[in-house]
Amino acid sequence: MKATSDDSISAPGGKSSGARGPSALCQLLGVSQPVIQGGMVWCTNAALVTAVGRAGGLGTLGSGSMYPEELRAEIASVQEAFDGRFAVNVPLLYPAAEQHMQTIVDAGVPVVITSAGSPKKWTSFLKEHGVTVLHVISSAVFAEKSQAAGVDAVIAEGFEAGGHNGREETTTLCLVPEVVAAVDVPVVAAGGISCGRSMMAAMALGAAGVQMGSRFVATQECPAHDKFKAHVLAAQAGATKLRLKSVTPVRMLDNVSGGFSHLVAEAEARSAGVEELREILGKGRAKQGMRGGDLLEGELEIGQVSARLHDIPSAGEVVRDVVAEFEQVRAALASPSFHW
Amino acid sequence: MKATSDDSISAPGGKSSGARGPSALCQLLGVSQPVIQGGMVWCTNAALVTAVGRAGGLGTLGSGSMYPEELRAEIASVQEAFDGRFAVNVPLLYPAAEQHMQTIVDAGVPVVITSAGSPKKWTSFLKEHGVTVLHVISSAVFAEKSQAAGVDAVIAEGFEAGGHNGREETTTLCLVPEVVAAVDVPVVAAGGISCGRSMMAAMALGAAGVQMGSRFVATQECPAHDKFKAHVLAAQAGATKLRLKSVTPVRMLDNVSGGFSHLVAEAEARSAGVEELREILGKGRAKQGMRGGDLLEGELEIGQVSARLHDIPSAGEVVRDVVAEFEQVRAALASPSFHW
Repeated sequence: MKATSDDSISAPGGKSSGARGPSALCQLLGVSQPVIQGGMVWCTNAALVTAVGRAGGLGTLGSGSMYPEELRAEIASVQEAFDGRFAVNVPLLYPAAEQHMQTIVDAGVPVVITSAGSPKKWTSFLKEHGVTVLHVISSAVFAEKSQAAGVDAVIAEGFEAGGHNGREETTTLCLVPEVVAAVDVPVVAAGGISCGRSMMAAMALGAAGVQMGSRFVATQECPAHDKFKAHVLAAQAGATKLRLKSVTPVRMLDNVSGGFSHLVAEAEARSAGVEELREILGKGRAKQGMRGGDLLEGELEIGQVSARLHDIPSAGEVVRDVVAEFEQVRAALASPSFHW
Repeated sequence: MKATSDDSISAPGGKSSGARGPSALCQLLGVSQPVIQGGMVWCTNAALVTAVGRAGGLGTLGSGSMYPEELRAEIASVQEAFDGRFAVNVPLLYPAAEQHMQTIVDAGVPVVITSAGSPKKWTSFLKEHGVTVLHVISSAVFAEKSQAAGVDAVIAEGFEAGGHNGREETTTLCLVPEVVAAVDVPVVAAGGISCGRSMMAAMALGAAGVQMGSRFVATQECPAHDKFKAHVLAAQAGATKLRLKSVTPVRMLDNVSGGFSHLVAEAEARSAGVEELREILGKGRAKQGMRGGDLLEGELEIGQVSARLHDIPSAGEVVRDVVAEFEQVRAALASPSFHW
């Protein structure tokens, strides 16, 4: 590996190209910090997105849990409160994806993060409307397909991330350098990142920036229920597991004793079929858990870093503290006193 | 996080203590580079350990796959070829553990890495004989127990690591900072590390050094069968999975079509009981696969980073290249051109 003239940490064996480091990512996104707040279902609103944007990061509305009129209203609220850039996340397999895309271009949303589907379907449409497009992937193969589809950057999300997740189970530490070596576009790291040290780890692996979901769930502005937030703070190592692999893999937090996750675990232990698992899952559990605060019957999606979260700061503080800690770690690692 | 006067990257909320950075770890281990070659079953011998030691790292004999007389002979070979420090890994649940411990103190082995069992049982005995003791853990709770048992350092091994693995499924990125915050002793990161960038990621998380297993399997000196090494190089993302969770979780590589891993996957998909899984596992499959090169019937243990391995260098080159790349990444991250 050679230090390159651009600001990226290039990957040995990787394709070299123009700048795709944090500076290039910030320019692409139109923000001052290479920090993206993930578009988590049931856990985003205009207040969160605005707070992140005001602190210099990229706030993201998670449209996967919004009706079309709700998304329109939240976008309008962001635009009223804040004149900077923000994003909307669209899980492509969601029924309202097509309506959401029209809402997005009509409202002039500057950045879209697509996930859970093929980047081929909407990238051209969005690019034609001047939208910057990022796609979430869990393997180098999907990163290459995303690049071929014309996305501006990819978000490489590891096994430790909350919510829906890839079948390869590749962790962020293994995934990011592989993706950096496979594509030329900027790579954003996601999964397992909640602080300046993990942001520095991601940058060392060649990422141009980070996306954090769980860390922003545990903030004052996040519209998740206080009971869910408290349950997240109480989570210990091993409290989240990737479940429903035969349906669609999702990392969820253990419910209180006898609750939903325990039913799923019990059904999976006896190899229940996809149909039975779908029936156990039913409808509306994610809202019930994360927005409604039902810790028994609700589905609670969060990442492994929940075990490392111990406070509920404001979202702006998260952005500022993570970047400040990143700079401190950077200085410590560069210091002559860090030696052997 | 403040840059401390010692050489460690301290964890916010973590216990601060004396130096426990890479310099302290090198001093503790008596080596010049904070790089440990893991004591992988069936994949170590005196030649590998000596090559790692000569390059400045800590080579480790994996006694978990050795008869007592074999371990004695390998230790003698190392001591004949090389006058520096090296280690023996002892999985504590292995039947020969007690005999191995006597062999180790009789031969004056300077460092022991214990794993797969309670650190209470042997730490005092080893320390009384002047042996430096490291224990492998997969959670902060076990790190605390190890520290209480008197170990000199812990090795925090994440979900992506090959071979036997923790039930919490915590990835290296999430595990290392949690362990660094929980204990005062130096923390070595393991799992997902194969290059200077991942070494830098581990250091950014607060680790004092790294342990690599898979990377050293794919070396010239490693006594694994050439067919196994070639199969490791051919591995793609998703080719390793954590299996046999109900027996004892082990990350293994897919066999060739219709082989052992596929039988296990099929049995697990129909929730086969522990007894049946033990029967499928049988005896001697790890040797058959990794040493014998039987890609159909053998058990093939390797980490997720196998997807990132593309060559078979000498073990000395691995140590030198990883450290050199680490220094290049360090310089690039510290450079004014890395900015936004």
